[in-house]
Amino acid sequence: MATKAAVSISVAASITAASSSSSKFVINTPHRFLCLKRLSSFSSFSASALAIKCTSISNCSPNKSARSMEGFTTRTRASAQPLENANELIASVETFIFDCDGVIWKGDKLIDGVPETLDMLRSKGKRLVFVTNNSTKSRKQYGKKFETLGLNVNEEEIFASSFAAAAYLKSINFPKDKKVYAIGEDGILKELELAGFQYLGGPEDGGKKIELKPGFLMEHDKDVGAVVVGFDRYFNYYKVQYGTLCIRENPGCLFIATNRDAVTHLTDAQEWAGGGSMVGAICGSTQREPLVVGKPSTFMMDYLANKFGILKSQICMVGDRLDTDILFGQNGGCKTLLVLSGVTSLSMLQSPSNSIQPDFYTNKISDFLSIKAATL
Amino acid sequence: MATKAAVSISVAASITAASSSSSKFVINTPHRFLCLKRLSSFSSFSASALAIKCTSISNCSPNKSARSMEGFTTRTRASAQPLENANELIASVETFIFDCDGVIWKGDKLIDGVPETLDMLRSKGKRLVFVTNNSTKSRKQYGKKFETLGLNVNEEEIFASSFAAAAYLKSINFPKDKKVYAIGEDGILKELELAGFQYLGGPEDGGKKIELKPGFLMEHDKDVGAVVVGFDRYFNYYKVQYGTLCIRENPGCLFIATNRDAVTHLTDAQEWAGGGSMVGAICGSTQREPLVVGKPSTFMMDYLANKFGILKSQICMVGDRLDTDILFGQNGGCKTLLVLSGVTSLSMLQSPSNSIQPDFYTNKISDFLSIKAATL
Repeated sequence: MATKAAVSISVAASITAASSSSSKFVINTPHRFLCLKRLSSFSSFSASALAIKCTSISNCSPNKSARSMEGFTTRTRASAQPLENANELIASVETFIFDCDGVIWKGDKLIDGVPETLDMLRSKGKRLVFVTNNSTKSRKQYGKKFETLGLNVNEEEIFASSFAAAAYLKSINFPKDKKVYAIGEDGILKELELAGFQYLGGPEDGGKKIELKPGFLMEHDKDVGAVVVGFDRYFNYYKVQYGTLCIRENPGCLFIATNRDAVTHLTDAQEWAGGGSMVGAICGSTQREPLVVGKPSTFMMDYLANKFGILKSQICMVGDRLDTDILFGQNGGCKTLLVLSGVTSLSMLQSPSNSIQPDFYTNKISDFLSIKAATL
Repeated sequence: MATKAAVSISVAASITAASSSSSKFVINTPHRFLCLKRLSSFSSFSASALAIKCTSISNCSPNKSARSMEGFTTRTRASAQPLENANELIASVETFIFDCDGVIWKGDKLIDGVPETLDMLRSKGKRLVFVTNNSTKSRKQYGKKFETLGLNVNEEEIFASSFAAAAYLKSINFPKDKKVYAIGEDGILKELELAGFQYLGGPEDGGKKIELKPGFLMEHDKDVGAVVVGFDRYFNYYKVQYGTLCIRENPGCLFIATNRDAVTHLTDAQEWAGGGSMVGAICGSTQREPLVVGKPSTFMMDYLANKFGILKSQICMVGDRLDTDILFGQNGGCKTLLVLSGVTSLSMLQSPSNSIQPDFYTNKISDFLSIKAATL
């Protein structure tokens, strides 16, 4: 099985190389996010029930000078328009995908008018999906958060990057006799367990230290076939070394990142270093690039489109972040709506240095109600 | 003072941008290392006693596809030659700079013939300098290691990246009323102290945890004007968040890396994740690139040339690593000798995928004795 995994990696590597000379690839992000549009067989695991045609590789560097790499196509978009006809947008869309933090809630507080807006959309027969890059909770744990906030959301409607990591491994038929080493919190482990994968690491390794006597070496499990890295507030050197050994020494071992977000919202009082830190650390020691399953990678979008049989042109991605949410929608070929209830202000959107333009923007999702009323 | 630091950063940023369209810049490394050849005023701190004309910026990504970025010049070198005339090389060189691990010692063991070789070179009036990217020890602590191994080396001849970080801050007249936040081990703190800088962080923050109650935020010292990141086996989330806050929120705060090595040699039994991990983590959360003071950055080489008044063409850099030692020598315009007593094998040197070719290679530095004898 190690051999099969090795094939997967080498295919991914050749894609990266090929991307510099092919117009099939699109790059339009500060993170040099590559969207591989027509990749019929991503890996030797691809005899999967899920027809995943598109995956994505983003790399370690936020270096802006690299954006202009020869051969990449940069899409130029018209400036975002204020949402003036909500009815028209709603009518043209079958599924709304909502980012959570900054759209549905802020920290532990519901944003004004959210329940009424969701009820209105459901009453019009729209499918609602909730997507988050936060991998610390499983979809079940997110379900409880929605419930606590008084929102009636089904687990099946929730897509966290913890779930995406497990779903990705399922999609490539990751062998059940292989193991996953997790750098991250409980959500990743819960989703791996639900998907039937063997795992090690996670919170259990949070208190581990290395010994530094002469001749000492850290043993690692040769059956680890994938390292999944997500946000981890108990990140330590033991985990860095363990994950690095697996990636470097186990033939074909995959390196999967739930996301590369620079910041996360542990509390609403400040911005906290995000999953990009843990991923950056593993990049630094392995000199390898991860496969990212969370936003702005298109994996989750493809999964959703497949699962629900939706045309991507009939999806509207609603989010508060340009470089994850809006890019995620655009990479997936969806309509996009930026709400200003989270981290992005109107001046940030309209700054000449910003190249990511959603189709529309508005203050918050409950504007759907007032804008609709105004146009009646 | 915060304003001055801000100028420094913006200058560095403009250099990165300019480099893509100027032939003055050289890139010839897997880490996209930029050597800025004729930079007359790096920063507003530059009214320094040390005329530092050249610094360097390397970035987060080891992504190889980026090597071919438009506008960069890649130097092509002839294949390395086996060292056949040691006398001739010795005669043409005034100063030998030796990497330590893999050249002088391996872990805690001296490599065969080292004392005799160093004695012979000293007897011929050669200046000897010992350079290491390891920042966990100060030059004083390294002095003790040399002594323990029976080598007679003066502290002044030792240049560790811990020393380089403090020397860099001195060279830019980093204000004494500002503080340095250190992510790293004792060596960095000792050198900062010797150089008269105020600091915080280091091993003391190794046991700290964050609290996650609602509304909690981590306070940070607004007087921190530089974050120095080196190898740190007690790396944790507290340090990532503290360093990130300083870099992101303190105007003009510098981000300095002692090195970005993927691996380090904590014990001789295996390769351990190196300082590149800690630096990668801070890149991931700040989306900023560090200024690297260790190899292969030319900062230490410039410092040495200045301190001893040596012409770089009369320096020979001797090391066991292509992407740090040999590149360091080449970036500095020195002669280079690869020894095969460390991590690089002859087949790695001669592999078609290796683009870094030293001037000469030999098995170990004591070949200076036997090759010399053979040619007499």
